[in-house]
Amino acid sequence: MNAVPSTLLQQTDQLSGSVTRPIPGSRKIHVEGSRPDLRVAMREIVQTRTPTLFGGEENPPITVYDPSGPYTDPDVTIDLAAGLAPLRARWIEERGDTEALSALTSAFGRGREHDLKLAHVRFPSRTLPRVAKAGANVTQMHYARRGIVTPEMEYVAIRENQRLELVRDALLRQQHPGEAFGAHIQQVITPEFVRDEIARGRAILPNNINHPESEPMIIGRNFLTKINANIGNSAVSSGIAEEVEKLVWSIRWGGDTVMDLSTGKHIHETREWIIRNSPVPIGTVPIYQALEKVDGRAEELTWEIFRDTLIEQAEQGVDYFTIHAGVLLRYVPLTAKRVTGIVSRGGSIMAKWCLAHHRESFLYEHFEDICEIMKAYDVAFSLGDGLRPGCIADANDAAQFGELETLGELTKIAWKHDIQTMIEGPGHVPMQLIKENMDKQLRECGEAPFYTLGPLTTDIAPGYDHITSAIGAAMIGWYGTAMLCYVTPKEHLGLPNREDVRDGIMAYKIAAHAADLAKGHPGAQVRDNALSKARFEFRWQDQFHLGLDPEKAEAFHDETLPKDAHKAAHFCSMCGPNFCSMKITQDVREYAAEHGVDTGDALAAGMAEKSEEFRAQGAEVYRPG
Amino acid sequence: MNAVPSTLLQQTDQLSGSVTRPIPGSRKIHVEGSRPDLRVAMREIVQTRTPTLFGGEENPPITVYDPSGPYTDPDVTIDLAAGLAPLRARWIEERGDTEALSALTSAFGRGREHDLKLAHVRFPSRTLPRVAKAGANVTQMHYARRGIVTPEMEYVAIRENQRLELVRDALLRQQHPGEAFGAHIQQVITPEFVRDEIARGRAILPNNINHPESEPMIIGRNFLTKINANIGNSAVSSGIAEEVEKLVWSIRWGGDTVMDLSTGKHIHETREWIIRNSPVPIGTVPIYQALEKVDGRAEELTWEIFRDTLIEQAEQGVDYFTIHAGVLLRYVPLTAKRVTGIVSRGGSIMAKWCLAHHRESFLYEHFEDICEIMKAYDVAFSLGDGLRPGCIADANDAAQFGELETLGELTKIAWKHDIQTMIEGPGHVPMQLIKENMDKQLRECGEAPFYTLGPLTTDIAPGYDHITSAIGAAMIGWYGTAMLCYVTPKEHLGLPNREDVRDGIMAYKIAAHAADLAKGHPGAQVRDNALSKARFEFRWQDQFHLGLDPEKAEAFHDETLPKDAHKAAHFCSMCGPNFCSMKITQDVREYAAEHGVDTGDALAAGMAEKSEEFRAQGAEVYRPG
Repeated sequence: MNAVPSTLLQQTDQLSGSVTRPIPGSRKIHVEGSRPDLRVAMREIVQTRTPTLFGGEENPPITVYDPSGPYTDPDVTIDLAAGLAPLRARWIEERGDTEALSALTSAFGRGREHDLKLAHVRFPSRTLPRVAKAGANVTQMHYARRGIVTPEMEYVAIRENQRLELVRDALLRQQHPGEAFGAHIQQVITPEFVRDEIARGRAILPNNINHPESEPMIIGRNFLTKINANIGNSAVSSGIAEEVEKLVWSIRWGGDTVMDLSTGKHIHETREWIIRNSPVPIGTVPIYQALEKVDGRAEELTWEIFRDTLIEQAEQGVDYFTIHAGVLLRYVPLTAKRVTGIVSRGGSIMAKWCLAHHRESFLYEHFEDICEIMKAYDVAFSLGDGLRPGCIADANDAAQFGELETLGELTKIAWKHDIQTMIEGPGHVPMQLIKENMDKQLRECGEAPFYTLGPLTTDIAPGYDHITSAIGAAMIGWYGTAMLCYVTPKEHLGLPNREDVRDGIMAYKIAAHAADLAKGHPGAQVRDNALSKARFEFRWQDQFHLGLDPEKAEAFHDETLPKDAHKAAHFCSMCGPNFCSMKITQDVREYAAEHGVDTGDALAAGMAEKSEEFRAQGAEVYRPG
Repeated sequence: MNAVPSTLLQQTDQLSGSVTRPIPGSRKIHVEGSRPDLRVAMREIVQTRTPTLFGGEENPPITVYDPSGPYTDPDVTIDLAAGLAPLRARWIEERGDTEALSALTSAFGRGREHDLKLAHVRFPSRTLPRVAKAGANVTQMHYARRGIVTPEMEYVAIRENQRLELVRDALLRQQHPGEAFGAHIQQVITPEFVRDEIARGRAILPNNINHPESEPMIIGRNFLTKINANIGNSAVSSGIAEEVEKLVWSIRWGGDTVMDLSTGKHIHETREWIIRNSPVPIGTVPIYQALEKVDGRAEELTWEIFRDTLIEQAEQGVDYFTIHAGVLLRYVPLTAKRVTGIVSRGGSIMAKWCLAHHRESFLYEHFEDICEIMKAYDVAFSLGDGLRPGCIADANDAAQFGELETLGELTKIAWKHDIQTMIEGPGHVPMQLIKENMDKQLRECGEAPFYTLGPLTTDIAPGYDHITSAIGAAMIGWYGTAMLCYVTPKEHLGLPNREDVRDGIMAYKIAAHAADLAKGHPGAQVRDNALSKARFEFRWQDQFHLGLDPEKAEAFHDETLPKDAHKAAHFCSMCGPNFCSMKITQDVREYAAEHGVDTGDALAAGMAEKSEEFRAQGAEVYRPG
């Protein structure tokens, strides 16, 4: 093991302290599957009893989906320099179709490994990666198509159900019918359904065999809507410790996957620290690093450099690669009259390359060679939308939709190799044009999962683009997008800091949950119902704990009513004690009870009778006299 | 004139300084109508020239809608203790159908006027109000139905057009076709169209004859989508100076109307300060004050107390009243099994009254008497949704929709009296149930403007309900809602402070503008196009200035790249100089130009040729060799 410089370790020690405090009101639980080493992590929110005034009943704990990993588990000791426990290692080894390498395959990776100048930033506990045995295909899609239900698939099935079977209270179970636009929403997710969806290509389970630390999760429109958080340093700002901090911070607030978009120095080492400490799938855009290797001169990129980069990253454990293989030569001129041209970094790099060489890109020409790499590690494709619109004016244009059609063709090639594939989408799109994006994606790409950035529904709010885009994200999630890539308030302006990351994730957790409610995912409304019941009964702490951000909710409440006594107050600062409508509603019920009508049926009956009397008397708006 | 205590004046002096600084990059302009005293206030955002690298052309100033009033006009000296200039006074007097009172009509108002203990908080420059002459109806709807185009209507027409006729640049003028769901969107708003819409009841122009300081604006789905900001102290917090500050702050960021929901002491005096200093229409919920007059005991409310309150507020100049006349006895038991019962304060007050008296409310029984008051001052109805759902579970239920049907009946009665009327809507509604609200409202209420709170699309995000609700607001605005009532991050938790008000307004400006884009309002996309062009050309200052919040955009940018030189940088902190996709796109264009193809048609032609060549060679993904 390499020696780790004390400064970096101290930094990471500090970080782990600040982001691993327990989430207020919650406890970590694990639901065991068909084998003892299959323990699905969830979060349980404990509720207090209803005040006697309102009935005095017990309120059941509410189970919620939890991507925060071991960081919020008080039973786990976190050691960032050691990395997380490789919970999937045994499952991978058991399959017998992979082998440990004796050296890194990537020339660049080997070079970094032996560079003494990097000792101070290198992850200290690195083990050698695995690779598929000769001729083997180790993707979850390959297993699925052969009818195999892997432990990963079972994990996902248990995880998606969120122990809904334990919720028996009728009030909590009530839910409006959804409108799913043709999605196949299940009442109960079975491991077999997970397998079938992966086999069809309608869902992906991104989990590189070299990222055994990851807790399996699934991306597909027949499952809960997921969100991605982007982190990553740049040449201008931030370092390794800060990025690991952002990773842990992101998943604490609910990020389901994290993309490492680093472009600065130590990109390789930063990625290693992130993956070794990440319980969620990590995505990257390998062309960013490839471009660094040619000092930013896009036209000097080659297939060989790119190939070595893919292998370098696949052997580190990256779970999905954004690959902009759909940027074809003939689409580039279609962007010339756009208001904002090409705004995807990857897209513009490839466009520049195509123009410089007057030929299709090596990504397109070597697409099947890329598939061979993907299947040897089970890296999923995230087919990049390099020509996505960068402003409202450019939405749904010929360049964007041309590329989408090509992504559909590439999806079919990837599927021929049993490579898990999702498709990236826009961007900036006004509301009336959003559904066309979803419909076309489903049609062109055979229902492969859609993974969209926003879309932003207007261009005029720099500083608030988490909101302009949460509107579009909620809508496209409802229409069928499987994963929503977050946008922070700093979009277009600067690099997000911690609070920006939190704001971006919250906006996207809201969008994703609003989409789940609208699609009618079973049990999606349980948490809303529980929180609303708590609100109605003035159970302030339960209301905070059931919310997406308990810490902020409590802090906001305390700004106006800081005293502890007010946590039990039957009013809030909005209206004061005499004007609280919730309190008045309680008075209404009490009044009704005193006068011989009870809540519920009795009240309804009693009032219906009075109402009948009233109508029998004429029911006129203006009675004589 | 009464003496004003120095403390209050000092407070208001301080306030006016902090919220009246010019909006960066903007200047106030006035567009003159058919008479010299008809000068429509707008804001013009000045742009810089395009850098030579990108073409070097001039960029025209962009005109935007501006509700901020004289506060952002450097030519106006603000004196809060004197109030704003009464710009409509002459128009009102000219019509000859009103007269000045010799004393306040309301007994309560007279009492406050002569209470020495109130001298220290009383607005010092109060003049006596006006009222319709006996038998006269002074509503804009009454004039409209008689074919009269008032100066107010002309003002609105000029204002809505935003000088779109000056925008000639094809890039700026481009706009996607909208989907207006049956709205009658005009290419140009004429005074006659305004008159016709008001006459039909499809729009309202709220402007009490006793609020001559207001700049006319219109609320209707065939006009730009508007937003409302709520302010108001409560028994728990805040005072007069703080509320006036919030008013000016709200309109600075774009609030089109402001509701004063004060419930604490000095409610009458606070309102006077607000109205005298407000260039936007002010709405209230008179039942709140009436309840204070009976010490919070809802069952002791009487028609006489309520009537006196209506007149008191009408003579102060309130422009629209929320009246919960649709809470009928027979609907109350329909709420008994709800998760959160009745959450509207007004609704719960009236429900309690109905139950206590076993009869329909005085609001319902005296509805035509209320109309008589409204028409004497031109106060508009905002028919309150007292039974709106307070959580996702309760959305679109029998109580809510029953009340909406009654509001439809009341609309027709109001229209019989030529009273301008809008309808309040929910609340908490999951996305898939939003459109049903809009469709039913249009059907039941004869296309009277809909005015909704959110709706919030999930209950699980206390602390972020400006976002949960901006999603619903954008959608229902698209479907046809005319005005969106903002929700701040403090909703459900506490009273909003200044920053919360700003966040709430920004979220709603975004929702309203996204709705305008989606409906296809002419010119709605001009600002998006201008901002995106500035973004593409690295005109950072123009990008900030064209945004909804120039100050925040610049502050965010400067967090990462604080140096002035970076304001002219052709990259941003997101990606650094080598990775900026915008820069690479420029490189693409330059490269193309150097190689004999130019941007635009030439580039398209050149590339199409190359592309043809490519396809002629086989256009295969994997060419042999």
